[in-house]
Amino acid sequence: MSDRLFDRLKADNASAWIAYTDHAFVRALADGTLPEAAFSRYLVQDYLFLIQFARAYALAAYKSDTLADIRHAASRLLGIVDRETSLHLDFCRGWGLSEAAIEAEPEARQTMAYTRFVLERGMAGDLLDLHVALSPCLVGYAEIARAIGPVASNNPYRAWVETYASADYQSGASGEIAFLDSLMERRGGPGRFVSLSATFGAATILEADFWQMGLDAGR
Amino acid sequence: MSDRLFDRLKADNASAWIAYTDHAFVRALADGTLPEAAFSRYLVQDYLFLIQFARAYALAAYKSDTLADIRHAASRLLGIVDRETSLHLDFCRGWGLSEAAIEAEPEARQTMAYTRFVLERGMAGDLLDLHVALSPCLVGYAEIARAIGPVASNNPYRAWVETYASADYQSGASGEIAFLDSLMERRGGPGRFVSLSATFGAATILEADFWQMGLDAGR
Amino acid sequence: MSDRLFDRLKADNASAWIAYTDHAFVRALADGTLPEAAFSRYLVQDYLFLIQFARAYALAAYKSDTLADIRHAASRLLGIVDRETSLHLDFCRGWGLSEAAIEAEPEARQTMAYTRFVLERGMAGDLLDLHVALSPCLVGYAEIARAIGPVASNNPYRAWVETYASADYQSGASGEIAFLDSLMERRGGPGRFVSLSATFGAATILEADFWQMGLDAGR
Amino acid sequence: MSDRLFDRLKADNASAWIAYTDHAFVRALADGTLPEAAFSRYLVQDYLFLIQFARAYALAAYKSDTLADIRHAASRLLGIVDRETSLHLDFCRGWGLSEAAIEAEPEARQTMAYTRFVLERGMAGDLLDLHVALSPCLVGYAEIARAIGPVASNNPYRAWVETYASADYQSGASGEIAFLDSLMERRGGPGRFVSLSATFGAATILEADFWQMGLDAGR
Repeated sequence: MSDRLFDRLKADNASAWIAYTDHAFVRALADGTLPEAAFSRYLVQDYLFLIQFARAYALAAYKSDTLADIRHAASRLLGIVDRETSLHLDFCRGWGLSEAAIEAEPEARQTMAYTRFVLERGMAGDLLDLHVALSPCLVGYAEIARAIGPVASNNPYRAWVETYASADYQSGASGEIAFLDSLMERRGGPGRFVSLSATFGAATILEADFWQMGLDAGR
Repeated sequence: MSDRLFDRLKADNASAWIAYTDHAFVRALADGTLPEAAFSRYLVQDYLFLIQFARAYALAAYKSDTLADIRHAASRLLGIVDRETSLHLDFCRGWGLSEAAIEAEPEARQTMAYTRFVLERGMAGDLLDLHVALSPCLVGYAEIARAIGPVASNNPYRAWVETYASADYQSGASGEIAFLDSLMERRGGPGRFVSLSATFGAATILEADFWQMGLDAGR
Repeated sequence: MSDRLFDRLKADNASAWIAYTDHAFVRALADGTLPEAAFSRYLVQDYLFLIQFARAYALAAYKSDTLADIRHAASRLLGIVDRETSLHLDFCRGWGLSEAAIEAEPEARQTMAYTRFVLERGMAGDLLDLHVALSPCLVGYAEIARAIGPVASNNPYRAWVETYASADYQSGASGEIAFLDSLMERRGGPGRFVSLSATFGAATILEADFWQMGLDAGR
Repeated sequence: MSDRLFDRLKADNASAWIAYTDHAFVRALADGTLPEAAFSRYLVQDYLFLIQFARAYALAAYKSDTLADIRHAASRLLGIVDRETSLHLDFCRGWGLSEAAIEAEPEARQTMAYTRFVLERGMAGDLLDLHVALSPCLVGYAEIARAIGPVASNNPYRAWVETYASADYQSGASGEIAFLDSLMERRGGPGRFVSLSATFGAATILEADFWQMGLDAGR
C-alpha cells in the first residue's frame, strides 16, 4: 500500500470513500440522467459552500508559520473568490439561476454541517487537521472526474465534469496530496493517524450527505 | 413587546421557535408516550452534545475581556463537565446504557451540525454572537420544562422534566437572558440585530433537528 | 469633531497618537539624519512584521460573513504577500541586506509584541476589533507620509516616504477609514467605544515602541 | 539525557532557560534583597498576567478532543480564577496594594508580549503548541522555587517561595511535564521538535523579560 497520507486515510475509510465517490448522484451525473432539479439544488448550495471554503483557506493562511505556507493558502483563497465563484455563477446562469436568487437562498443543513465541521476542526486543531478535513472535497472531486472519464457530448453535465477533469484542477489536487505529506512530515507522527482518520472519515460522510441533498431535490 | 434581546430574537424567529419548543418529541415527552428508543437515542447524543457545549463555554471564557466574564463562563463550563455529564450518565444508566457504550457511540449528523455551528459562529464572531448561538439551548430547555409543567407521577420522563424545571436550572436560564442584555449593552448596536437574529434562527432550527433525530429513532 | 470612528479613536488617544506619528524616528527619517543602522534594523523587522500582518488579513477573511468582506480581506492579504514583501526585499537589497539574512533574523520583542497583540485581539473579538487593531499601522503610515511631505532629493529615505505618500497607498488608507465606519454601522454601538479605544491606544503605543526599536539600533 | 519532551526543550534552550530561572530578580528574591518596589511591580503585573493565563487554559479546554482533556484544562482554569487570583490579592494586600489599585493598573508591555504570544501560538497551532508555550511558566516556577530551597525566616518573600515550593504546586508541575509527554505521543512526531523548541525558547525569553520588568521598577 502507498504510504502517502492521503492514500492511508482513504484506505482507513474505504466504505465511506466509496459511498461518497460512487454516490448515486455521481453516477447519474456521469450518464446524464441526473434530474435538472437535483443538479440546480446542488449547484446553488455548492456556491454557498464555496464561500465557507474560502474562509477555510483564509484560516489556513492564518494558521501558517511560514511565508511559503501563507502564499500557498492565499493562492487557493484567491482561486476561490476570484475564479471558482465566477465559474459557478456562469454555470448557474446557464441553468437559469440568477446571482441574486443564489445569494438569497438559505444554506441547506448539509452545507452548514460540512463547512462548519471543517472550519471548526481546523480552528481547534492545526494546519494538518485543517488540510485533512479539506482534502475529501479538493482531492475527491479530482478523483470523481477522472473516474467518470470522457462523457457523451450531449451529457448536460459535461462542462461540470470537464472542469474537474481539467489539467489545472487535477494538478491542484496532486499538489494537495503532496502538501499533506509535507505537513505530516513537519507536524505529524504515528500517534496522530487515528484522529486524522476520524476527521477524514467525518468529512467524507458529510460530502456524501451533500450529494444526497442534491439527489433528494430531484425526486 | 419586551425590549430584552432574547425576547426580540424569539419574536423575530417565532415559527422556528415554536417548531423547536413545541416539537412532537417534546409533546410526547410531556405526556409520557415517547418511545423509549427515541429517548435513549436523544440521551446518548445529548451526552456527546454536552462535550461540545463544554468546549463552547471554554471558548466563551477565552473570548472574555474581564475576570468577571471569565468566571461566569468558567462556572458554566464546570457545571457541564462536573454536574451535567454525571447527571446524564446517571440517566443513561437508568435506561440501561453504560458509560462505555455511550462514549463509543458516534456523533449523529444533527449533533455535529448544531454544535459545530455554535462553536464556529462564536469563534468567527465575538462573545455576543457566541451567547446568542448558545441561548436557544440553555434558555429553550427552561422554557420547555416550564411549559410542560407538572407531569404525571408515572411519566417515565419525569426526572428529565424536573431537572430543567428546577429552580437551579431556571435561574441559570434567567441569568443567561440578563447576560445577553448586558453583552448587547457593551458590544451591541442596532446594526447587529439582523445578523444576531440569523444566528439565533439557525441555532433554533438545528435544535428542532436534534429532537427530530430522537423521534426518528423511535419509529 | 468628525464623527468618523477613526477620528474619534485618534482623538481619544491623542498623546499616544502624537508619540507614534511624530516619533523621533519619523522626524529623523524626514530630514534624512536617521542613522543607517536604525533604518536597517527597522526594515528587517518590518519584513518579519509583514508576515504576521498577512496572517492578520487572513484572519479578517476568516472572520467575514459576506463574500464582499472576504474579497476585501483577501485582496489586502495578496497585496502583502505579493507586492509589499517584494518591495521590502528590494529596499533591503538596496541597503545591502540579502533575503537570506533577513529571514534568518529573529523577531524583535517589539515585533512580536505588536503583531501578536493584533492577532489575538482580532481572534478574541470580532472583525471590528481586528480592524481597529490594524488601523494605526495602515492609516498611520499614510498620515505620517503626508505630514512629512516632499523630501529633499538627496534624502536616503526618500523612496520609503514616497511609497507611503503614493496615491495607491493613500487610497488604501482612506478605504480602511471608510471600512471602519461600515463595520461600526454593522457591528458597533455606543457601548463598544471604550473597548475599541483601548485596543486602538494599545496598538498605537506598540507602533511607537517599534520605531523606538529601530532608533535604539542606530545609537 | 532524559527523553522527556520538557527536558529536551530545556536542553535545546539552555542559555535562555538559565537566564530566566537564574535571573537577578530570582536571586534577589532568594536572599531577600529584592527592593520592595520591584516585587510590588512584579506582583501587580503577575495578577494581570494570570487573567490572560486563565484565558489560555480556557483555550486549552476549547482545543481538547476528549472530555478528560477538557476536564484537565477546566480544572487549571478554575484553579486560576478561584484560588490563584485570590491568593495574589492577599499577597498584594499584604504589600499595601488594594484590589482596585491593581485592576486599574495598565498591563506592562512585557505582560502583554508574553501572554499574547502564548494565546496566539496556541490558537494558530494545536494543544501541544499551546502547552509547550505555557510550560516555561508553570514548570519554571516550580523549578525556581525548588532551586531556591528553604529561605530565611525573615526573608520578606518567604510566602511567595513557599507557595511555589508547596507539594500542591510541585505536583501540578510534574503533572504538566507528564501531560506534555502524553500530547507528544498523541499529536507529536520528530518533525515537530524544531518548531516546538522555537516556541519554548521564545516563551522562556519573554519570562526573563517579565522578571526584568520587575527589577527595573526597583531601581
